[in-house]
Amino acid sequence: MPSFQQYLPILDWGRRYDRTALSNDMVAAVIVTIMLIPQSLAYALLAGLPAEAGIYASIAPIILYAIFGTSRALAVGPVAVVSLLTASAIGQVAEQGTAGYAIAALTLAFLSGGFLVLLGVFRLGFLANFLSHPVIAGFITATGILIATSQLKHILGITAGGHTLPEMLGSLVANLDQINWITVVIGGAATSFLFWTRKNLRPLLNKTGLPPVMADILTKAGPVAAVVVTTLSVWFFDLANKGVKIVGDVPQSLPPLTLPGLSPDLLGALLVPAILISVIGFVESISVAQTLAAKKRQKIDPNQELIGLGAANLGAAFTGGFPVTGGFSRSVVNFDAGSHTPAAGIYTAMGLAIAAVFLTPLVYFLPNATLAATIIVAVLSLVDFSILKKTWDYHRGDFAAVLATIVLTLGLGVEVGVASGVALSILLHLYKTSRPHVAEVGLVPGSHHFRNINRHDVTTTATVVTLRVDESLYFVNARFLEDLVQSRVVDGCEIKHVILMFSAVNEVDYSALESLEAINHRLHDMGIGLHLSEVKGPVIDRLKTSHFLDHLNGRVFLSQFDAWTALTQNPQVPDQKGAM
Amino acid sequence: MPSFQQYLPILDWGRRYDRTALSNDMVAAVIVTIMLIPQSLAYALLAGLPAEAGIYASIAPIILYAIFGTSRALAVGPVAVVSLLTASAIGQVAEQGTAGYAIAALTLAFLSGGFLVLLGVFRLGFLANFLSHPVIAGFITATGILIATSQLKHILGITAGGHTLPEMLGSLVANLDQINWITVVIGGAATSFLFWTRKNLRPLLNKTGLPPVMADILTKAGPVAAVVVTTLSVWFFDLANKGVKIVGDVPQSLPPLTLPGLSPDLLGALLVPAILISVIGFVESISVAQTLAAKKRQKIDPNQELIGLGAANLGAAFTGGFPVTGGFSRSVVNFDAGSHTPAAGIYTAMGLAIAAVFLTPLVYFLPNATLAATIIVAVLSLVDFSILKKTWDYHRGDFAAVLATIVLTLGLGVEVGVASGVALSILLHLYKTSRPHVAEVGLVPGSHHFRNINRHDVTTTATVVTLRVDESLYFVNARFLEDLVQSRVVDGCEIKHVILMFSAVNEVDYSALESLEAINHRLHDMGIGLHLSEVKGPVIDRLKTSHFLDHLNGRVFLSQFDAWTALTQNPQVPDQKGAM
Repeated sequence: MPSFQQYLPILDWGRRYDRTALSNDMVAAVIVTIMLIPQSLAYALLAGLPAEAGIYASIAPIILYAIFGTSRALAVGPVAVVSLLTASAIGQVAEQGTAGYAIAALTLAFLSGGFLVLLGVFRLGFLANFLSHPVIAGFITATGILIATSQLKHILGITAGGHTLPEMLGSLVANLDQINWITVVIGGAATSFLFWTRKNLRPLLNKTGLPPVMADILTKAGPVAAVVVTTLSVWFFDLANKGVKIVGDVPQSLPPLTLPGLSPDLLGALLVPAILISVIGFVESISVAQTLAAKKRQKIDPNQELIGLGAANLGAAFTGGFPVTGGFSRSVVNFDAGSHTPAAGIYTAMGLAIAAVFLTPLVYFLPNATLAATIIVAVLSLVDFSILKKTWDYHRGDFAAVLATIVLTLGLGVEVGVASGVALSILLHLYKTSRPHVAEVGLVPGSHHFRNINRHDVTTTATVVTLRVDESLYFVNARFLEDLVQSRVVDGCEIKHVILMFSAVNEVDYSALESLEAINHRLHDMGIGLHLSEVKGPVIDRLKTSHFLDHLNGRVFLSQFDAWTALTQNPQVPDQKGAM
Repeated sequence: MPSFQQYLPILDWGRRYDRTALSNDMVAAVIVTIMLIPQSLAYALLAGLPAEAGIYASIAPIILYAIFGTSRALAVGPVAVVSLLTASAIGQVAEQGTAGYAIAALTLAFLSGGFLVLLGVFRLGFLANFLSHPVIAGFITATGILIATSQLKHILGITAGGHTLPEMLGSLVANLDQINWITVVIGGAATSFLFWTRKNLRPLLNKTGLPPVMADILTKAGPVAAVVVTTLSVWFFDLANKGVKIVGDVPQSLPPLTLPGLSPDLLGALLVPAILISVIGFVESISVAQTLAAKKRQKIDPNQELIGLGAANLGAAFTGGFPVTGGFSRSVVNFDAGSHTPAAGIYTAMGLAIAAVFLTPLVYFLPNATLAATIIVAVLSLVDFSILKKTWDYHRGDFAAVLATIVLTLGLGVEVGVASGVALSILLHLYKTSRPHVAEVGLVPGSHHFRNINRHDVTTTATVVTLRVDESLYFVNARFLEDLVQSRVVDGCEIKHVILMFSAVNEVDYSALESLEAINHRLHDMGIGLHLSEVKGPVIDRLKTSHFLDHLNGRVFLSQFDAWTALTQNPQVPDQKGAM
């Protein structure tokens, strides 16, 4: 059953599962579980949901990804960017803290999961490529800033809102009088500690002689230490009664069976955000998966990944979660800790299930400020303005796309930002290809090569002009070629033949075909022959389905040298009937 | 003053104007004037404006185009498609027959003229290329059907409305009880006569021994005959009192000085239609101009054409007209009648000015049904469904764009139709380039050439894989290349070197650069070298502005043969420091 197995990678690796794989996977699972508990609580807070939603979102989704996904190291669950997008999307349809809000989160996961599965089944993963790398980089940076800013209220112990940077800052300033200084101390200390561990702990541990992998994992367990210490402090000093906001009651249970809201209004309102979340989540996840797979020469199937992530989100929708994807830092930890197969994910899910049932009372006194600190420290590592400099150096068009994405995401929100970035990338590409590089070429003496007459010392003749077109021909640049050829032949009265050298033309669409027909017709009116050389197989096959070659007032030559030789030695326009 | 003269082509040809040119231009002007009188009345009717607006729109605009335009043969004035777009746009902001309606027409011409001039001054004519040929062909065909349908009410002598085909047909059927049979007889006779002249008169005249050009022009004067005969009939039989709608009073005057409405609401409402009208008018006009110019080996400057057409529309806005552009049939008549310079346009304008002052009483009894007949016969020649078959044969993607444009223009109106066509064309282009043709190539024995291993009998080796990428690399296909390379090297365990042959890569954008970096990094992790060959000048220049080449785990070879020879003879990964 090859096609069945194609959709269930677990049948492949599960069959060869052995004791070594088991012990490797168990070790990785324990480490990831410890790391994931504070993360899942924090991202639930970021999404505006109760703490348990974060844990639930880390159980069923992980198991489903292990069954359907192709990466051996990817750790699926709530991640920062997707959680912010979730808060932004469902904040528009429901009030935070209401039942409708949690149901909207389920609906968002449901739509997102369904969309990903559809993309995967119809093998439409390429649509994710419409997000160019600079746009993604700019978007992640801007989102990191938005997320960090959104968490400042927890550090300050005040209430505030807003979905854009000006809104958030305005709301923070307006509510600054509510500030709770004990919360500020806890939040400030946790933030400083986490920044310190991230920056200084690893070199310190390395000096003690610990293996680098262990040092790395201990460093990443910093949030666990912060959670333990601040929770104990709140409990011991009874700070919850002094205005410090805490996580409070978290139900002790396995993930409940839930139903997403399916009213047409709700589905309609969340469809576009769900598509955005799916695409951004997929792009992030597949980059991580491919980087890790390459290290072990393993294969990632992008379309099967869509199905794996889609299944994970559908799982979240029916078990009290919210949208999830493959997280960067925890996947790296999972990989470094030695995870061997997706079974590591299943053990992680078991670990979290145990935590959900037995450990939730322990986080009662955990202050929100600590969770906010872990979020701030995690997302500020995503903020990277160097993309601005890199794209500035490489291409101003790419730079413009990044800058617009950052400015618009911060100023007008995540959806406008990413949509503008995509639109700008597409327009810039069309603009670039609308004025292709066309070189007039001549023969390099003593060779069969042809080079740009402006860059090389080459042989030319007044009667034969060869133009090498360095771009596929399609509607955006079809008329450009018409103008160019017309302008060239009007300038040169002795011209008897024009050769278009097609070595870099990968496509001729119907618009370009009509332009070539117009060029042929107009040159014919001027008594000039039109010839093609070095036309690629797929292009000539396509041209043969039209009547262009039948009416061509000239010939198609296999090589430019043949064309040059034939036309310079015989300056008469050849009979096109004999050409093909 | 070269830059001043650049914007005033009249300074060029005006200086060399002589008696031969004068007599040629005068003859052409007389013929075009006779043809233009019924046309301008008819297109005013189509735009929903009083008859004199059509004549006014043919005076100042023609003179301004003669001063600023570059085509020697283009005849500017009201045309069918633009008149329909005008009716559709201003019908949404004002009631037909009111003063506001006429003012909105001026505003539309003003916006359209301003937009065209801006495009020309900033040399942005390439934006018009976003309309692909199939989309334009589909749009013109659908518009022809809409226009013909919109005129049926005049032939039937009833009132009806609607901007889409279902609306128009529904409105016609609902008002069928108002039918005036005398009008039907006049309209039916005029339509049949015009179809007959178009189809049969020319062969008949050719048989009499008339020169073909004269036969052609007489055929195109058919509408004048229809106008004369039906006007006399209405007058003689007093049909206006029997329910036949006539043109009626047309003021006897030169074009008045008018001011377009400039309220922000009106400007805002008409901006998008004005852009659409500008672009469609420009595309139609420049095709005619270029085709006619090529016949005499003359040059058309697209950006100066924008200025010429823009000036014409601004002229229409201030002299009681409505949006204009270069018309196909009258330009061909102008050319065939021997027009030598744009001065022919100036004489045509004089002819129309004389007509406006002295001849307007003569069209008092002209029935609207006759004008409708001239419109129907003219536009049905634009309807051409063969584009569906041609694109079906050539490429299904182009076919889909045409079909969508036709169906949506007919069903949802001109603006939705053309916008969908443009969006679909762009998406199809992105889709096509998102999965580029990549060939694995090997050495043709005894040569320096490399060809597709699946199509040719070539030499390969297990340690060196060469992939020829037949597409520019940019964000839409960057990840595709990553997947492809990864999938190829995971399959071949003996691979030591991957060569990417870049002979058809015309661009590497920042996304693709990052993908190349990722490929390099991942291959490095697998102990495989990455090399490039046949990289074009502009591409290598761009790559040198990044750090990619510094980190490349391999070399850049000028020719693929050099790469192949070096890597098959020395299978070690070369030190990249020595490469660049």
